[in-house]
Amino acid sequence: MTGKFITIEGLEGVGKSTQANNLAQWIKTKGHTIVRTREPGGTPIAEAIRDVVLDMHPEKMDPTTELLLVFAARKQHTESLIRPSLTKGAWVLSDRYTDATYAYQGGGRKLDLATISHLENLVLKGFKPDLTIWLDCDAEIGLARAKARGALDRIEVEDIGFFNQCRAAYQQRFEADPMRFIRLDANQSIEAVKADLVQALEGWYDTNS
Amino acid sequence: MTGKFITIEGLEGVGKSTQANNLAQWIKTKGHTIVRTREPGGTPIAEAIRDVVLDMHPEKMDPTTELLLVFAARKQHTESLIRPSLTKGAWVLSDRYTDATYAYQGGGRKLDLATISHLENLVLKGFKPDLTIWLDCDAEIGLARAKARGALDRIEVEDIGFFNQCRAAYQQRFEADPMRFIRLDANQSIEAVKADLVQALEGWYDTNS
Repeated sequence: MTGKFITIEGLEGVGKSTQANNLAQWIKTKGHTIVRTREPGGTPIAEAIRDVVLDMHPEKMDPTTELLLVFAARKQHTESLIRPSLTKGAWVLSDRYTDATYAYQGGGRKLDLATISHLENLVLKGFKPDLTIWLDCDAEIGLARAKARGALDRIEVEDIGFFNQCRAAYQQRFEADPMRFIRLDANQSIEAVKADLVQALEGWYDTNS
Repeated sequence: MTGKFITIEGLEGVGKSTQANNLAQWIKTKGHTIVRTREPGGTPIAEAIRDVVLDMHPEKMDPTTELLLVFAARKQHTESLIRPSLTKGAWVLSDRYTDATYAYQGGGRKLDLATISHLENLVLKGFKPDLTIWLDCDAEIGLARAKARGALDRIEVEDIGFFNQCRAAYQQRFEADPMRFIRLDANQSIEAVKADLVQALEGWYDTNS
């Protein structure tokens, strides 16, 4: 029996790491082996690509270059780690996946959504998560938390307008495929989000396992 | 007046660097400013991507990951260096460009040519060289020269069958668009290839400048 592929999505500072810990704990209580990973990255080659994407460069990176790098890392991650783990029956939990590309490169960088969709089909041929947890939070709140954490990467230094566009793009993804998503109000306290998460997971598990 | 974009293509060890020097010299005698560059690479970001493509990794690189990385580097190279240089009137001479992707990832790695073509259109939207010099040489001869030069990268360590497939793919590219190409017999001596190169360039220049 193959495992389930679960992703966790949202802006900087929405509490993805904390809730991913809660999610991982919940998966374990259900008796499943879990592989935790992240994007961009997740394998040595994909992490090398991540460095190119997130490092500060004196040269301006072309938005399509960024898009291609993100999908290059994703393809490696998918074929080298995600699919083999699922085949072995493990559940895979990834901090971000393709929805983040629609949010950041589509919403944020305003790249044509048809181009992203084209590339997604060309590269992933329909492969997508079984379940996506979207931690939805006001961009101002998330960004303030991310800044409080310290040094920002090449994407985290973007302004509030950029992150509002990313959030709107996540909203579009959610509306286009609501059955795949659990949307959580991440403006709440960590404990309240956790309670909502576990309740929603139990409902999902009853109908999907 | 915009400059001309000239590429030089061929397998390892066919004498690309030597003939690129001759080509650059010829361009200067015609009174044009020249920008010399190479792929994968050509700008700091594109060179960082080149390192990921050519470094040896314990992990096997997915062929589609390699393809996406090559186009990511190419897009950066094109928008950050090639187009701006041509706009300023310079002639740009690149050691390899998109034809090499059809040869190596298409012919060598046997990736679907339709996928490569799709990606080329998505990323470059029809942008291609004004002229391509193809140094055509038996794969055995080229590979022996490359090995004599020393340490080999992740692609140069492939076997002779791989390079024969690359050569056949270059042949297809040549046949599909012969007006863009000058094919030179690179099994000859360096001096003989140079003589053929200059003669062919003069003929091309008379009708294209």
